[in-house]
Amino acid sequence: MPFVAIVTVVALLQFFWLALQVGFARTRYGVAAPATSGNEIFERHFRVHMNTQELLVMFLPTLWIFAAYVSPLWAAALGVVFVLGRAIYAISYVRDPKSRSLGFGLSIFPVLIMLIGIGVWAIRAILMGAAG
Amino acid sequence: MPFVAIVTVVALLQFFWLALQVGFARTRYGVAAPATSGNEIFERHFRVHMNTQELLVMFLPTLWIFAAYVSPLWAAALGVVFVLGRAIYAISYVRDPKSRSLGFGLSIFPVLIMLIGIGVWAIRAILMGAAG
Amino acid sequence: MPFVAIVTVVALLQFFWLALQVGFARTRYGVAAPATSGNEIFERHFRVHMNTQELLVMFLPTLWIFAAYVSPLWAAALGVVFVLGRAIYAISYVRDPKSRSLGFGLSIFPVLIMLIGIGVWAIRAILMGAAG
Repeated sequence: MPFVAIVTVVALLQFFWLALQVGFARTRYGVAAPATSGNEIFERHFRVHMNTQELLVMFLPTLWIFAAYVSPLWAAALGVVFVLGRAIYAISYVRDPKSRSLGFGLSIFPVLIMLIGIGVWAIRAILMGAAG
Repeated sequence: MPFVAIVTVVALLQFFWLALQVGFARTRYGVAAPATSGNEIFERHFRVHMNTQELLVMFLPTLWIFAAYVSPLWAAALGVVFVLGRAIYAISYVRDPKSRSLGFGLSIFPVLIMLIGIGVWAIRAILMGAAG
Repeated sequence: MPFVAIVTVVALLQFFWLALQVGFARTRYGVAAPATSGNEIFERHFRVHMNTQELLVMFLPTLWIFAAYVSPLWAAALGVVFVLGRAIYAISYVRDPKSRSLGFGLSIFPVLIMLIGIGVWAIRAILMGAAG
């Protein structure tokens, strides 16, 4: 699983980078913790981080289950699309929230593909008599 | 693990469905991103999604560790209770936030049961001399 | 993996405990759902819970991948540092948000160490010709 592991490390470092941007935006736009609103640009950074978290909650389990039971190399390839989608999402959302659709689509697409792949594998495994 | 995999796919598609409801509520109640407040009904959809995320962060690791070391079939059965609990939670919270306790209880209960099961397994494994 | 499993159970019960504190703060400071603002002390409890969730999204996959491919005992030891860091973070944030850096550092440090360890393992595995 080393390729899947590297994609995981990159995706989590990207998530950490987006968290740091929220911290920097706190200082730059004067939004002291615990507040999470009060400045539009800060809120964009904050929402980019939150939305990435929502997708990671779907992406990481999906990536590893797909890698374990379907294909580790396809998992890694789809994971690269996810990370690129997140980068596009972050840049376009901060520039203009209305332009966030492309990046969002590019990161949800590999997750849905892998969920379908896991579903197909699981149903076939059950029909072929797998236990548990 | 095919039954546990199917429960995972269903739980994540349910989570994605709840995210779509937040998006629809943005349009219907006029709450443009990055705002996450300003309309009570929108905020209910938003909080349902957020609370489901909090529980998935507990549920998914617990489900797979319990399946790997205790019982994959019991994991899948408890996972079905979790998904039903989330559905009840989502419907009742949007109708009236004060009625959210039953759905919340039905989804936290299987998580706590599995955490206890993992704890019992782990302590026994250590007492019997397992490494690492 | 029993030591890693116990660290996971403790980290998730700690997360659940922090969620209960948010619920108690709702009652004590009169912030009814779905609102998540309106009282400074409530918002501190809420942000402690949210920040812990952000870190768990990084910590749990990292912990298990590191345990599976690098070292389960080091994973468990670094996991104990994470849980202690979260406890210090929660106590100091509620007392004074400006004092949250030590606890944050103590919980992000083991995650970054494990991410580096996974990266080193994965690159070596690829150079030595591992598939997938």
